Parts: sequence; C-alpha cells; structure tokens
Amino acid sequence: MSFSITRIVEFHETDMAGMVHFANFFKYFEAAESEYFRALGWSIFDADANLRWPRVSVSCDFKRPVRFGDQVRVDLMVRSVDCRSLELEFILYREANNESSVAATGRCVNVCAYYDAASRRVRARSIPDELLAALQCDIGASQAATEAAK
Amino acid sequence: MSFSITRIVEFHETDMAGMVHFANFFKYFEAAESEYFRALGWSIFDADANLRWPRVSVSCDFKRPVRFGDQVRVDLMVRSVDCRSLELEFILYREANNESSVAATGRCVNVCAYYDAASRRVRARSIPDELLAALQCDIGASQAATEAAK
Amino acid sequence: MSFSITRIVEFHETDMAGMVHFANFFKYFEAAESEYFRALGWSIFDADANLRWPRVSVSCDFKRPVRFGDQVRVDLMVRSVDCRSLELEFILYREANNESSVAATGRCVNVCAYYDAASRRVRARSIPDELLAALQCDIGASQAATEAAK
Amino acid sequence: MSFSITRIVEFHETDMAGMVHFANFFKYFEAAESEYFRALGWSIFDADANLRWPRVSVSCDFKRPVRFGDQVRVDLMVRSVDCRSLELEFILYREANNESSVAATGRCVNVCAYYDAASRRVRARSIPDELLAALQCDIGASQAATEAAK
Repeated sequence: MSFSITRIVEFHETDMAGMVHFANFFKYFEAAESEYFRALGWSIFDADANLRWPRVSVSCDFKRPVRFGDQVRVDLMVRSVDCRSLELEFILYREANNESSVAATGRCVNVCAYYDAASRRVRARSIPDELLAALQCDIGASQAATEAAK
Repeated sequence: MSFSITRIVEFHETDMAGMVHFANFFKYFEAAESEYFRALGWSIFDADANLRWPRVSVSCDFKRPVRFGDQVRVDLMVRSVDCRSLELEFILYREANNESSVAATGRCVNVCAYYDAASRRVRARSIPDELLAALQCDIGASQAATEAAK
Repeated sequence: MSFSITRIVEFHETDMAGMVHFANFFKYFEAAESEYFRALGWSIFDADANLRWPRVSVSCDFKRPVRFGDQVRVDLMVRSVDCRSLELEFILYREANNESSVAATGRCVNVCAYYDAASRRVRARSIPDELLAALQCDIGASQAATEAAK
Repeated sequence: MSFSITRIVEFHETDMAGMVHFANFFKYFEAAESEYFRALGWSIFDADANLRWPRVSVSCDFKRPVRFGDQVRVDLMVRSVDCRSLELEFILYREANNESSVAATGRCVNVCAYYDAASRRVRARSIPDELLAALQCDIGASQAATEAAK
C-alpha cells in the first residue's frame, strides 16, 4: 500500500504552453511528502524538534501533460531509508472519467538534518529511531504497490 | 529621479492565458524593492541587523499584458515614510522598439520590524535613523518623477 | 452566505521570513475564484466557450502571518457585477483550535473577455446572460455575509 | 566553451529553511536555456514557427544552499542532440568573494514539438536543420568545458 494525495490543478500552475509548468510537479510531490510525514506524526520541517530534510537529488520523468482543472493523484512510496537519508518515489496520475493515467514519475533523496545555531549551518543528523522504524515499515508495502502498478 | 530595474520575462512566469500571471507582477515589484534597498546599503531582510519589512497592504492595476521574452522596466518611487512604515509606488513598463508603455502600476505599504526570539513573533520597530534619512531624501525626487510620467 | 474553500499551507509557499510569501495570497484567492466559477458551472478560463477573465486590479491587506501547515479558509463574496466586469472580495482566515482569525482581506476586479484569433488580442465582451444572472444573485447574499463578519 | 547566465537570488525564491526552494533551481536552468536559444536566434516557445520543447525528464543534484542576495551563475552545456531530442546539462555556481563553488548540477531532456490545432495535441517533430546544426556545433565545446570543470 502506498500513501496518496489528490488535488485539482490550479490556474497559476500552468504556463503559456497550456499545461502545468514542469517545475510545479515537484511542488505536487512535496505536498505528498508533507502529508505523508504528517500522517506519521512528524513534519518535514519541525522547528521545535530542530528537524528538517534538505534534498540531495530529485528527478522527474514526464509522460503526459496535466492541465488546469484536472484532478491529479500523487502516490508516494518509500524506496529506501538508512540512518541518515530517505529515498521516496512518486507516481502522478491524471484522473478523468474513472480512469487514471500516469502523467509523471519522480524521485527524491533527502537527508535528515538540523540547524546548528552556533555555526549557522544545516548539518546532517541521524533519523530519530521512532521515525526510522515507521519509514522502514513502509518500504515493503511500497515495493508491493510499485510492482502492482507495473 | 526614480530607481529602476530591467528584466526579461521568463517562461515560468507565464500562465495558460499566454501572459505573465498577475501574481508575478508583485515579484517584479519586490525585485525592484530589493535592489533599491541594496543600492541604499541595506537589505529588505537582514538577519544580522534583525531588520525586516512585512507587508501591510499591496495593490496592482493592470493596463497591458506582458509576455514571455518581453523586456520590462520597473520604476520604484518612495511615496511616503514615517518612523515605522514605508509606502512605495511602482510603474512597470513594457519596453519594445524604443517605446515604453505602462503595463501595470502598483503600491505597497511595509512596516519596519524585527524578530523577537523570546516570543517567536515579528514586532514593529522604528526605522533606523540613517535609513529613514535616506528614504526621506528620495520622496521629493520620486514625486517629481511621478509628475513627469503623467 | 459566501462561498468558501479550505486548504493547508504548503512548504513551497513560505519564504525565508518563515511565513507565506505575500504574493501567494493571491494564488489562494484565485483558487477560491476557480472553485466558485466551477460551482456555478463555468470556468475562469474556458477555451471552448472562448471566455476568460483578465484582471484589471487586485489588492490585499495583511493582518496576521500564515505559516507552513496552517489550515486557511478563503471566503469569496461577489461585491458587484455589471455586463462586463466583476468585483470579488476575499477574506482569508487562519483556522486553529476551533478559532478563526482574519489573516488577510483582498479584492479583485476582472473583466470578461475573449481571445480574438484574427488580431491575436484579448478583447472585452459581455458576460453571458446566464452567468450574469447567477453572479447578481450572489451579491445580496455576499453583502449579508460581509456584514455578519464585521 | 559553455553558455552562461548570472543572476541575483530573489526573496520570493527562498523558503522557510532560509534558502532557495529546490524547485526554483529548475527555473534558473530554464532561464539559462531560454537565453541560450535566444543567443542562437531561436526561442524555446515560438508561436510563429509553431515550435516548442516539452520536457521528457529533468534532474538536479544539490551540493550547497543558495540564499537571498547570492549571485549565482548557471553554465549550460549541450550533452547530446539528435533529430528529435536535446539533452542539456547545467552547473549552478554560487559566486562570492571572487570564488565560485558548485551549488547544484542538473540535466534535462526535451523533445522538439509543435501544436497540432486539429487534434489539440502537442506532437513531436524534427528539429529544424539550421537549429540542429547549431546545437551539434556546441556539443564538442560543451564536452571540453565539462572536462575542465572536473
């Protein structure tokens, strides 16, 4: 089982080619990531716990255009996690007339980090045990979901 | 005399109507504001001096569309300033074939503020004397520029 | 009665001041507008009907910061409408702990327009009768809602 | 030799982590691409020639944060081109105190396409000969530049 969000494409997300500007797909993926962390009881940016997740790498492959007013669904899968970094995979579907077609797939690798006030730098840290366990738990489930989608 | 910046409209700033999305005009105005503060030797967001300028109100009137690749010029004028707040006016010109036509006019009112770490709130403060003097200095000049543009 | 949408503030909508960047408030207002038109059975950008709504003027007053993860509600009210132009008013509430506080109020004036392929220009047109009637119908209701909010 | 653009990071491009939001790196890359096409005498979106370049895939690796007011330089290199698709590589440098450090590297693959009014779809087409020749010309130069940067 994967984690999903659904949203309607907004006007300001389009460009003059009449479709969603490609950079906005990363905002959709990030929204899914935020909701996923929230569902786990955490946050992708937590000032109190001094926990954040700077990105190391991201990518996206585009299959079909998505347009103003379209309903899209983003599935999020945990690909891998170790004590410091997390790899997520995303599949964005355009949903219409009871059919879903894959519009884009994406990936991101984030590291767990904290803000060190003394040096004014963001530094890597270990993922909190409880969160690590929850993320690991979702790997197997995600793999099954990805296989099923193929 | 007013302060100006020039820029070329970027693809991601357009929407499916084929023109710059209206919310992006405020980004152009903000860019002019940033450059203006920089030219005065200050910054619109200064972590070291703990000085920032939250907005109280903004507005924009649209006269002509601006499109991908267009050269635009933003003129910034200081309308008024008192010990705590600053009102700026903007005129955005589309420049083509040695002609400039007004595409939009805007305004913003900002207050001078600092971040109070104890309460975790942003609070109003007085504009530093030196900066206040520089801003007041530009009011007269701006009024002359606005009159000339009419 | 006014028309409302609710949404959660996304990470990419914030800026380094730790709150939603002011220009993004206009995207929230636009999202409300899109949903409102959809609820009426129309669209703010309809290629088939060749109907669009370029903006003539917009404004926003900011009362309170809105932050990542906050739930916000946007109320939309029809202020006035004539055969060619439409004025909308927006109130953005931050909702937390069973309380709503006004974070911003906004307005926009749009004109009804079509794309004239021959001249490659967007030109003003009359609002379709059926849509005009629906919009007029909502004026009275909106006024009552605005009064109640005061 | 590679093609370069330079710009100053704007306030609205930052997020609450105090640095440029990762999705905006793609806007910097796109700006370099637009300028590169312009320098070749073409456009990444040309309504008259009915020529556009939808993206097939994009990626970015992040090395260092980039902040408000930083000067950044984007180098663009042509990695490969065939009759229908184009692969570009980008290196984004943060420039400060006469030093440049790599902040991010990116890639994109675009296909050459046109808008088919009859079917209302964007379809692949061959890259115009003259443009293809110019792009091929820049491959060798780009490879030399990439080697030198290593």
